[in-house]
Amino acid sequence: MPAAEKDHVYKILELVGSSETSIEDAVKNAVGRASKTVREMKWFEVVQTRGHIENGAVRHYQVTLRVGFTLDG
Amino acid sequence: MPAAEKDHVYKILELVGSSETSIEDAVKNAVGRASKTVREMKWFEVVQTRGHIENGAVRHYQVTLRVGFTLDG
Amino acid sequence: MPAAEKDHVYKILELVGSSETSIEDAVKNAVGRASKTVREMKWFEVVQTRGHIENGAVRHYQVTLRVGFTLDG
Amino acid sequence: MPAAEKDHVYKILELVGSSETSIEDAVKNAVGRASKTVREMKWFEVVQTRGHIENGAVRHYQVTLRVGFTLDG
Amino acid sequence: MPAAEKDHVYKILELVGSSETSIEDAVKNAVGRASKTVREMKWFEVVQTRGHIENGAVRHYQVTLRVGFTLDG
Amino acid sequence: MPAAEKDHVYKILELVGSSETSIEDAVKNAVGRASKTVREMKWFEVVQTRGHIENGAVRHYQVTLRVGFTLDG
Amino acid sequence: MPAAEKDHVYKILELVGSSETSIEDAVKNAVGRASKTVREMKWFEVVQTRGHIENGAVRHYQVTLRVGFTLDG
Amino acid sequence: MPAAEKDHVYKILELVGSSETSIEDAVKNAVGRASKTVREMKWFEVVQTRGHIENGAVRHYQVTLRVGFTLDG
Amino acid sequence: MPAAEKDHVYKILELVGSSETSIEDAVKNAVGRASKTVREMKWFEVVQTRGHIENGAVRHYQVTLRVGFTLDG
Amino acid sequence: MPAAEKDHVYKILELVGSSETSIEDAVKNAVGRASKTVREMKWFEVVQTRGHIENGAVRHYQVTLRVGFTLDG
Amino acid sequence: MPAAEKDHVYKILELVGSSETSIEDAVKNAVGRASKTVREMKWFEVVQTRGHIENGAVRHYQVTLRVGFTLDG
Amino acid sequence: MPAAEKDHVYKILELVGSSETSIEDAVKNAVGRASKTVREMKWFEVVQTRGHIENGAVRHYQVTLRVGFTLDG
Repeated sequence: MPAAEKDHVYKILELVGSSETSIEDAVKNAVGRASKTVREMKWFEVVQTRGHIENGAVRHYQVTLRVGFTLDG
Repeated sequence: MPAAEKDHVYKILELVGSSETSIEDAVKNAVGRASKTVREMKWFEVVQTRGHIENGAVRHYQVTLRVGFTLDG
Repeated sequence: MPAAEKDHVYKILELVGSSETSIEDAVKNAVGRASKTVREMKWFEVVQTRGHIENGAVRHYQVTLRVGFTLDG
Repeated sequence: MPAAEKDHVYKILELVGSSETSIEDAVKNAVGRASKTVREMKWFEVVQTRGHIENGAVRHYQVTLRVGFTLDG
Repeated sequence: MPAAEKDHVYKILELVGSSETSIEDAVKNAVGRASKTVREMKWFEVVQTRGHIENGAVRHYQVTLRVGFTLDG
Repeated sequence: MPAAEKDHVYKILELVGSSETSIEDAVKNAVGRASKTVREMKWFEVVQTRGHIENGAVRHYQVTLRVGFTLDG
Repeated sequence: MPAAEKDHVYKILELVGSSETSIEDAVKNAVGRASKTVREMKWFEVVQTRGHIENGAVRHYQVTLRVGFTLDG
Repeated sequence: MPAAEKDHVYKILELVGSSETSIEDAVKNAVGRASKTVREMKWFEVVQTRGHIENGAVRHYQVTLRVGFTLDG
Repeated sequence: MPAAEKDHVYKILELVGSSETSIEDAVKNAVGRASKTVREMKWFEVVQTRGHIENGAVRHYQVTLRVGFTLDG
Repeated sequence: MPAAEKDHVYKILELVGSSETSIEDAVKNAVGRASKTVREMKWFEVVQTRGHIENGAVRHYQVTLRVGFTLDG
Repeated sequence: MPAAEKDHVYKILELVGSSETSIEDAVKNAVGRASKTVREMKWFEVVQTRGHIENGAVRHYQVTLRVGFTLDG
Repeated sequence: MPAAEKDHVYKILELVGSSETSIEDAVKNAVGRASKTVREMKWFEVVQTRGHIENGAVRHYQVTLRVGFTLDG
């Protein structure tokens, strides 16, 4: 919720991204994929961190994000 | 969050469906209606179960669902 | 919260109903019993779903409901 | 969740609106802006109330809303 | 929970009030209506703020309140 | 939710009790006061524990309880 | 938490069960499977209801349960 | 969380303000009083809205705020 | 989560204990019973406090605990 | 939130206290220690109850409190 | 909750792992340690992220995980 | 909550830190900045993970921490 854009109306989008490497990478994958169709994304919030396990080891991380973008950008 | 699709990015959609018969039927009605425009839905989560009452009897059930679908299907 | 009655004040009642058959039936039992003394019930929300187990099998379902009714009906 | 439309399926949209005047005005700004592209909005729920402070005074209010609209309107 | 009445036992009542004007007015309508039958109300807490939308504009605000009153007043 | 009474419908009442001595005593005061008018109370749940402080010392404890009682006792 | 067994200590187990038919059936499948190794289960609570979707239709329901059983049965 | 100050560390302060007039006024009273000793406050979040009732009418509103301010302002 | 044991992996166990005397006694009964089979318990958290009522008086207290113990003790 | 002081602004402080004896004693220890530097504390709320276990027995109780005090006392 | 195994019943285990390096490493340590005795773990969810501080610096990270594994693997 | 210091009273501080690199780095920045004025910090808990997005990419991570420190260190 950036101060410089306080007259805007935001819409919030919910996404799930994943990565075999790190939680940060899962965030980046979700944001990068969404940027193909959604412009003017401004902030995100991580609302859940999960992952899959295979053969007794972490296979990848999976984050659920709420992402805010301006409707009037 | 199916294991076989773990490299995908999901988007989460929130829906409300209703049924005079059962909670399961209210879920099916919401999913069925959404399937007309959203392809590649993979999972749902029930986040609220409500309903209306008329003349002292349950008139219908109403469920709020979060539904995940792939952005790259 | 029906649109047609938006000038009313509602009171919310909390009930627990049970059934050996289904979650929907437990809802109906609670609403049906309350209708003997409370008129003008309009909606319910399921806030907890529990049950008892006997001899390794589900014995019955038990739901906690919040029920709204008009004070001016 | 209006009683008269109980056979509809709703979709829920999440918005952030702001106002220098009041919480109510922030709600109206978000709903007004969304009405340009979303028809048949029926209800909203305030899920967060925040704001910015400048020079020791409240600069504006910012509300996060969940808004329900019919898919079949 | 007023300090001067700390030996009392309170009962908590849950109400929904509405107003076309403001959130504060919806609170007042609920409290005013309840005061016809419940004496000795002491405090309230807003637990949900919702509303209805008609023709792309906020039609009214609807607040859910928990209200405490003394049993021994 | 006693097993022996599983065909009953319960109503849930919310109370606040207080005591200068202990949390348990605050529970007992609320239940004791309610027993004057409500028969067939079966269980309680503590949903909040608060208290007042005077002159740098705890003056008394205050508990909020949900209490279930049978409607058909 | 049956009244007749109030001197017991319970342990709580968390399970996920599924069914293609209904939420109740998913509960029964989880309880039935657990009864092979855990004796003296007494109650359950549904803490999450989810499911999978295939080809635009609900494929099955999946419930997460907390199950209480006596340690001294 | 203003974008222009993203290298700062914030501290969060929790305050309760009140007003006989409105929720917004209760926010302003809390922020105004805190501004006497805390500089560089940037944002707030309303975490609870309560109030007192006297003689069957709302006596005043009381809001609990979380307020963020920069440690390096 | 004791500092001296920070290289350990903990498992968390969930228990319900009860007592006719006090909440603290209910905690002790659960921990004492579990200590017969689980060694190296390190900490607990109370997640719910309930109880039963008989003849208008508190019959006993019942606490739900999460208990952490080391897997490598 | 004492009625007699309703024009005040409160600040909320969060503390953790402990005791080998009881939950109430842990509350008193936290309040007593804070009273050395914070004047005009008015109320507290218990937000978490935990404890440590040594040799299969409860070693002490640990409570997390939110404490409100007046800024203008 | 992998799609390919939807007829299974899962049990959920709760673990705490730690690492001096990263949150991801704390997850891996917990999963790795559990894999010595629990086979067929399928997924995890991070439910709390904490850590210890020594001499003004982060000493290590500590995550609480819920881990699902099949009962019929 | 280290076992070796169990007679202490802790105060909890809430901080927001940020980093362009990682969640762990955002934690370290907040703790490092606070260590300039607060001695004897013992533990932290991450209560929110957010971030800003610029030009379709994650610009930085922002974590909200609760930090416990001894009052009697």
